[in-house]
Amino acid sequence: MEDIAELDHDRFDRIGLPEAIFAPGKSEAHLVQLCNEMMQSGSGPVLVTRADPNQVKALKAYFPNSQIFPDPIVFPDGLKTVVMMRKVVSKGPKVVIVTGGTTDIDVAGEAEGTLFACGIESELIIDVGIAGLHRLLGKIDLISSFDVVLALAGMEGALPSILGGLVRTPILAVPTSRGYGASANGTTAMMSMLASCAPGIAVMGIDNGFGAACSAIRIVNAALSFSNRASS
Amino acid sequence: MEDIAELDHDRFDRIGLPEAIFAPGKSEAHLVQLCNEMMQSGSGPVLVTRADPNQVKALKAYFPNSQIFPDPIVFPDGLKTVVMMRKVVSKGPKVVIVTGGTTDIDVAGEAEGTLFACGIESELIIDVGIAGLHRLLGKIDLISSFDVVLALAGMEGALPSILGGLVRTPILAVPTSRGYGASANGTTAMMSMLASCAPGIAVMGIDNGFGAACSAIRIVNAALSFSNRASS
Amino acid sequence: MEDIAELDHDRFDRIGLPEAIFAPGKSEAHLVQLCNEMMQSGSGPVLVTRADPNQVKALKAYFPNSQIFPDPIVFPDGLKTVVMMRKVVSKGPKVVIVTGGTTDIDVAGEAEGTLFACGIESELIIDVGIAGLHRLLGKIDLISSFDVVLALAGMEGALPSILGGLVRTPILAVPTSRGYGASANGTTAMMSMLASCAPGIAVMGIDNGFGAACSAIRIVNAALSFSNRASS
Amino acid sequence: MEDIAELDHDRFDRIGLPEAIFAPGKSEAHLVQLCNEMMQSGSGPVLVTRADPNQVKALKAYFPNSQIFPDPIVFPDGLKTVVMMRKVVSKGPKVVIVTGGTTDIDVAGEAEGTLFACGIESELIIDVGIAGLHRLLGKIDLISSFDVVLALAGMEGALPSILGGLVRTPILAVPTSRGYGASANGTTAMMSMLASCAPGIAVMGIDNGFGAACSAIRIVNAALSFSNRASS
Amino acid sequence: MEDIAELDHDRFDRIGLPEAIFAPGKSEAHLVQLCNEMMQSGSGPVLVTRADPNQVKALKAYFPNSQIFPDPIVFPDGLKTVVMMRKVVSKGPKVVIVTGGTTDIDVAGEAEGTLFACGIESELIIDVGIAGLHRLLGKIDLISSFDVVLALAGMEGALPSILGGLVRTPILAVPTSRGYGASANGTTAMMSMLASCAPGIAVMGIDNGFGAACSAIRIVNAALSFSNRASS
Amino acid sequence: MEDIAELDHDRFDRIGLPEAIFAPGKSEAHLVQLCNEMMQSGSGPVLVTRADPNQVKALKAYFPNSQIFPDPIVFPDGLKTVVMMRKVVSKGPKVVIVTGGTTDIDVAGEAEGTLFACGIESELIIDVGIAGLHRLLGKIDLISSFDVVLALAGMEGALPSILGGLVRTPILAVPTSRGYGASANGTTAMMSMLASCAPGIAVMGIDNGFGAACSAIRIVNAALSFSNRASS
Amino acid sequence: MEDIAELDHDRFDRIGLPEAIFAPGKSEAHLVQLCNEMMQSGSGPVLVTRADPNQVKALKAYFPNSQIFPDPIVFPDGLKTVVMMRKVVSKGPKVVIVTGGTTDIDVAGEAEGTLFACGIESELIIDVGIAGLHRLLGKIDLISSFDVVLALAGMEGALPSILGGLVRTPILAVPTSRGYGASANGTTAMMSMLASCAPGIAVMGIDNGFGAACSAIRIVNAALSFSNRASS
Amino acid sequence: MEDIAELDHDRFDRIGLPEAIFAPGKSEAHLVQLCNEMMQSGSGPVLVTRADPNQVKALKAYFPNSQIFPDPIVFPDGLKTVVMMRKVVSKGPKVVIVTGGTTDIDVAGEAEGTLFACGIESELIIDVGIAGLHRLLGKIDLISSFDVVLALAGMEGALPSILGGLVRTPILAVPTSRGYGASANGTTAMMSMLASCAPGIAVMGIDNGFGAACSAIRIVNAALSFSNRASS
Repeated sequence: MEDIAELDHDRFDRIGLPEAIFAPGKSEAHLVQLCNEMMQSGSGPVLVTRADPNQVKALKAYFPNSQIFPDPIVFPDGLKTVVMMRKVVSKGPKVVIVTGGTTDIDVAGEAEGTLFACGIESELIIDVGIAGLHRLLGKIDLISSFDVVLALAGMEGALPSILGGLVRTPILAVPTSRGYGASANGTTAMMSMLASCAPGIAVMGIDNGFGAACSAIRIVNAALSFSNRASS
Repeated sequence: MEDIAELDHDRFDRIGLPEAIFAPGKSEAHLVQLCNEMMQSGSGPVLVTRADPNQVKALKAYFPNSQIFPDPIVFPDGLKTVVMMRKVVSKGPKVVIVTGGTTDIDVAGEAEGTLFACGIESELIIDVGIAGLHRLLGKIDLISSFDVVLALAGMEGALPSILGGLVRTPILAVPTSRGYGASANGTTAMMSMLASCAPGIAVMGIDNGFGAACSAIRIVNAALSFSNRASS
Repeated sequence: MEDIAELDHDRFDRIGLPEAIFAPGKSEAHLVQLCNEMMQSGSGPVLVTRADPNQVKALKAYFPNSQIFPDPIVFPDGLKTVVMMRKVVSKGPKVVIVTGGTTDIDVAGEAEGTLFACGIESELIIDVGIAGLHRLLGKIDLISSFDVVLALAGMEGALPSILGGLVRTPILAVPTSRGYGASANGTTAMMSMLASCAPGIAVMGIDNGFGAACSAIRIVNAALSFSNRASS
Repeated sequence: MEDIAELDHDRFDRIGLPEAIFAPGKSEAHLVQLCNEMMQSGSGPVLVTRADPNQVKALKAYFPNSQIFPDPIVFPDGLKTVVMMRKVVSKGPKVVIVTGGTTDIDVAGEAEGTLFACGIESELIIDVGIAGLHRLLGKIDLISSFDVVLALAGMEGALPSILGGLVRTPILAVPTSRGYGASANGTTAMMSMLASCAPGIAVMGIDNGFGAACSAIRIVNAALSFSNRASS
Repeated sequence: MEDIAELDHDRFDRIGLPEAIFAPGKSEAHLVQLCNEMMQSGSGPVLVTRADPNQVKALKAYFPNSQIFPDPIVFPDGLKTVVMMRKVVSKGPKVVIVTGGTTDIDVAGEAEGTLFACGIESELIIDVGIAGLHRLLGKIDLISSFDVVLALAGMEGALPSILGGLVRTPILAVPTSRGYGASANGTTAMMSMLASCAPGIAVMGIDNGFGAACSAIRIVNAALSFSNRASS
Repeated sequence: MEDIAELDHDRFDRIGLPEAIFAPGKSEAHLVQLCNEMMQSGSGPVLVTRADPNQVKALKAYFPNSQIFPDPIVFPDGLKTVVMMRKVVSKGPKVVIVTGGTTDIDVAGEAEGTLFACGIESELIIDVGIAGLHRLLGKIDLISSFDVVLALAGMEGALPSILGGLVRTPILAVPTSRGYGASANGTTAMMSMLASCAPGIAVMGIDNGFGAACSAIRIVNAALSFSNRASS
Repeated sequence: MEDIAELDHDRFDRIGLPEAIFAPGKSEAHLVQLCNEMMQSGSGPVLVTRADPNQVKALKAYFPNSQIFPDPIVFPDGLKTVVMMRKVVSKGPKVVIVTGGTTDIDVAGEAEGTLFACGIESELIIDVGIAGLHRLLGKIDLISSFDVVLALAGMEGALPSILGGLVRTPILAVPTSRGYGASANGTTAMMSMLASCAPGIAVMGIDNGFGAACSAIRIVNAALSFSNRASS
Repeated sequence: MEDIAELDHDRFDRIGLPEAIFAPGKSEAHLVQLCNEMMQSGSGPVLVTRADPNQVKALKAYFPNSQIFPDPIVFPDGLKTVVMMRKVVSKGPKVVIVTGGTTDIDVAGEAEGTLFACGIESELIIDVGIAGLHRLLGKIDLISSFDVVLALAGMEGALPSILGGLVRTPILAVPTSRGYGASANGTTAMMSMLASCAPGIAVMGIDNGFGAACSAIRIVNAALSFSNRASS
């Protein structure tokens, strides 16, 4: 059978970022085939994003050692990111993923899985939205101990703005499409983050957990590279 | 000369709210004439909103006892609200006007002047935006001591959401058109306030300080009315 | 099993507003579990919003004393708000919920149920839209006898503007997503309410019946608090 | 000098509607020249819309018998419609122009002047916006005595919806760009009119007083034509 | 059982327009019940709009003499308007419904059925869109022989503009949501019609065939009323 | 003085299209300097677009042989395109520029001047908008005699759609920002052209006369290239 | 049975473009019937666009010689274009269809099938999006060897801009609705193409592969026509 | 005189970012006063953004050692960023600012000045937009030698997408409001960057050069902090 998609196999070598397989609209057989191709050809990690329950099942059956994000024991529902092949864990900078609610968990899992695939340590802090500010304020020291912050929020998307006034760390804001009515499928959160009065908030596309992880990986790589240069 | 505008002279008696004269586009002579008409005919307060420096000068010259908001000594520039005739100060509920920055001051002054005209006590707390959260947190007790909160913010408009998780008071959120680019002339703040994850935030139109004061007056009147009923 | 969502259990004590459980996307077992948790831990009321027929059935089976809004005898279809645990009824200010049509009834029920859960008396007046103005005008005296008005409308959303010129009461306008074509899923009504020529209309997000009730509760609490201060 | 614009001179004969000269951006000399051309060549009325004070002055100087709308004695400011040549007054159907405020007066004058030029009787009822409903309700009988209603409104644009439930007459709704913030330069009023819950409201473009008059003329002509057929 | 919706039974007497029952979301039993209520109580016509195949079947079974629009023999698919009770056919002005394509037929049928219910003669001319201008030009004389034109179009919605330059008749433009991509669910056609360079095009909301018929009925009634006055 | 802008001098050689100097915001001295640089360095034509009267005057003084579009004798006002150096006139395909009104003339002149600079013959047919269809129909044969059609229109932008059903030629539709209110600064025309029901209409950005000419040049070059290949 | 749709049978003769049958919403029997009608009456090609799997199956069963695009062996899923009758292959200009990803393939197939039906040679180059620029740069010479380029892209839609700086050929940019979140169903790509900094990019409506092919056919026909004129 | 604005003096200590004084709307005297206050009170750098020529002149007169960005010799026109007090230059990570055209220079200067004020080395590479791809490709190695890339672009905003496929570095994309028509004041570029098909592009608000520099400073600080930790 002819090759349908010309995957960017050498992306990891070229720019240090993974090529992920986007699951929606692909048959289970096709997903398995694409994963196999990537595992044989490339040097980078292999992962599938936004897999639905049936796709997850098929992938897990074929690749029993694959890892699923977010953790399916704690979060049985929703879309998943599945990692078939990962890089060795680096001793490099670490990333924290902070979410405003529990409904952002799919997007958080997409970021978590992508970082895991690339061998970067991360931690997930969920449900610290600004409607109960004490939950967030109690975790500022923990959050500050990481090197990069991914801040996910739907509705009015104010979480990154609040963090921006409290921590020195790079902040990548991810608007999520959760919420209804005036949330406008994430557009309100996205515009709010772009208009943030807190300085230095950088914004990703709506629900783009994979892209946010890639932005974080760019920062991690830059820090590693500077650190190597500085110590040599 | 024929009557041009049929002012709603009995609005104050009917629903307890003032009829304000909107200054933009009116000549100075016309403004003075309209004020005179209202002072002679009505039982309500008389005020002009959004007056530019020349209009303010003309009104002050003709009505030397009028009061100007925001205080022109502290804020020499910008549009002003001018009160020619006010109601006696009530011993009723009090209103606090909180702003995220100093650029919201015209809108804050419009609310302040309208409340003053109707005999309602108010206080102005400015420049406590969320980019420096400590400024706001230090004033939560003060803010909580008022009966109604007007919360003005431009850019991402998160101030009312933060307040909403911290105080029990009615919160009237006013998006302001200050900011640039992704602020979209106040639309981002407006949508953000409407999508607030903090419960019970009610939103006014962009830059509508007069309307916000009127909403506050409705609440003040309801509280007075209930209190009278309860004590009788 | 690990705790998934960190519910804001003390919200009722902190700001006088309930934490509601948002039903969409949650399994029936999960809903029952969350309700149980809230009933055991918190001091506030316990309610579920936007439950579909199956969720309602499951909740009713497990909590036979729960109450359903809007009344399922009169309105058999649509989403429901289910109240498992309520506060004692206060002798405080009362709220009226006015709707333009019958299609707004889910949102009205969400507001009604939330007020019920918090022990606040309310009454529902439906189908008094402005296309038949006589229906509304005949009820102005009744509406004026309440302390707070929630005005729900879809399509062009003019109901709150009309009420705004006729009653002194605080008016919380709720745009609903009912209607088609140029209604733009509630955006037309929302913009219309924000641009109202009637002074002092405060606006909630689209379909946000829960938020409207919370805004009303803030006003009720402010009136009670002022009344207590005034009489002491 | 070469002919710049190929005016549609026979439009009046072809479809019964005037060709108006749109003043903005045209020099005063050019306006006078275009008027002269039309007066010599065509059989239709000759009029200029949206003329600024200087253009009005130049036209009045050259064509001393021209008529200006809205009446410059009552409304000294704003843009004007100037009629150089009109048709004989018909004994046909009559049009009423109703406005929500006084700021809509330029647009009302554009409609009034266009009807005048075409020999159609009209009357202007201004400042009967819905914020003071009694002003409008007191004039319903008068409004009903006309054959066509032009209803102009800015801000939330609810005037035509209210009229729609009260009168049998054809209603042409004209959104105006007056108002600020959430009025969105007339877009809110326009969408509101298109989503009207009152049946049979037909909507014109924003500020399009000329178009509204043309729509009315089409209706007037249809009624005349039917009446002639019926009586023959 | 309690009354759910307070139908505006006397609308036909008050303003000459029918109250239609909007089918979407209503059970078949409920539809039949509402029709029965209207047939017994009111003096106006009785009709249901946007009925799906099952609703049509149920109504036809219960009311065997009802009429269905558009003609289900020619157009077996799509939503239907069902007329249970109609007014006697008047000898008044007649309406023509012109559509750009065949996909607008549901909306055309809604207008056709509403006119039929009110006893107004109409004719349907379909598929004369501007991409094949000869089809339209060949029918201009026929179209001109009617008193009111309803012009329906999706996509770029240019049909009413073309007609506007060719006929004297009142033109009610109805944007339809047919088309894809840049058609933006009818918004492109709607804006196009509102910005028409042809004078005197009045626009209805997207897909609002019922409203367009009501606008036409207002015009028909005005012509009848004027004709009666003129001949008396 | 350092070089500010690195002009794309070899664009004409590389892709056959001119590099134009965009006048807005540039001082007259700067414009002259940039023209001089281009005339000395490049092999392509030299032209300035959107020059205001003062810029035109300065360029004409310095480059007395330059040519101005649109013809300043016929169209004394508006922005101009000034051609300092042109290519020899080809015997290749010819372009016709058709406009709906006279207000589109600046954009038409930008296209005309760009084609002139590149040695391509073109003709201008203005004011044949669809509101007077006979003006357009009388020129279809003339238009069909050209190889490429540029169709400019503001307001509802229907001109290209009409042409699309009548001629075989490539049609490049250019939305212009002329018009007011619902024209939305050209957005309505742009969306209308993109949603055209006439097949094969390709659309340029709003007011982009230069880009439209470049699209036409690409087509002209393709036809020349094919013709050479075919005849060799 | 009466004729439902009046197909534009002579469009191919009149303007050289095919009339395609749009499959969505049509029953399989109806599709077959319409194809039969067109095959018997017209001189043009016969094709169906956007057919779903069941429609494809029905058409293939009835017209076993029909051809399907994109190739169903390589791309088993998605919507298809089915060609029942085609024109003889011309020796004229050739078209290349370039896509940014594999998800644009339905739209590419619609263009490919339309060109095939009209006897125009084309080639498909897929998955050369700009995220891996080397894939595209390696194919510039191949792309330049064609006479017209159709460039399809979703997400940020930058592919045509890049091509525009590298090739002389006419470029027809087709935004596709693939992508999520900030892609806004193709609107982002569409606006991006219209605002392209590369000169001479002409844009089609979202997902309009048929229209893009028609635009290409207009260019092919113009080149043929010029070539014939030049060589005679 | 009372203090008007409560500047966030300790922001630099708290989160490592400067508090900048936004010049628009401030009088020259006020600007000088605010600068003086900051220089005396704070430990951070002192800078003014978006100063117009008169403001620049006043600041330079009062603070003769201040530095202006972009370089006023090369770019005499436009808004400027003025640095009154800077931090010592670090030996840390370096930033490159890449722009698509010369019209983005004000925004680039705002970023450049902010980095300079904070003691971070940066370099400016302008006019390497994608319409002439060779200009950009020739500078990829240079760009790759920096630790952070700020990529500014107006119009379709594709520059960051192209860079994203070619370099490993963190990329902060800044949409600029330059361009006209379909550029929609920077919204097209902003949406395009958010929908980028290149992974790991983080986006700032429109024209937000200051914010982009702050994002870069967060990354620089994170790299320094990690490097210190790693080497200790």
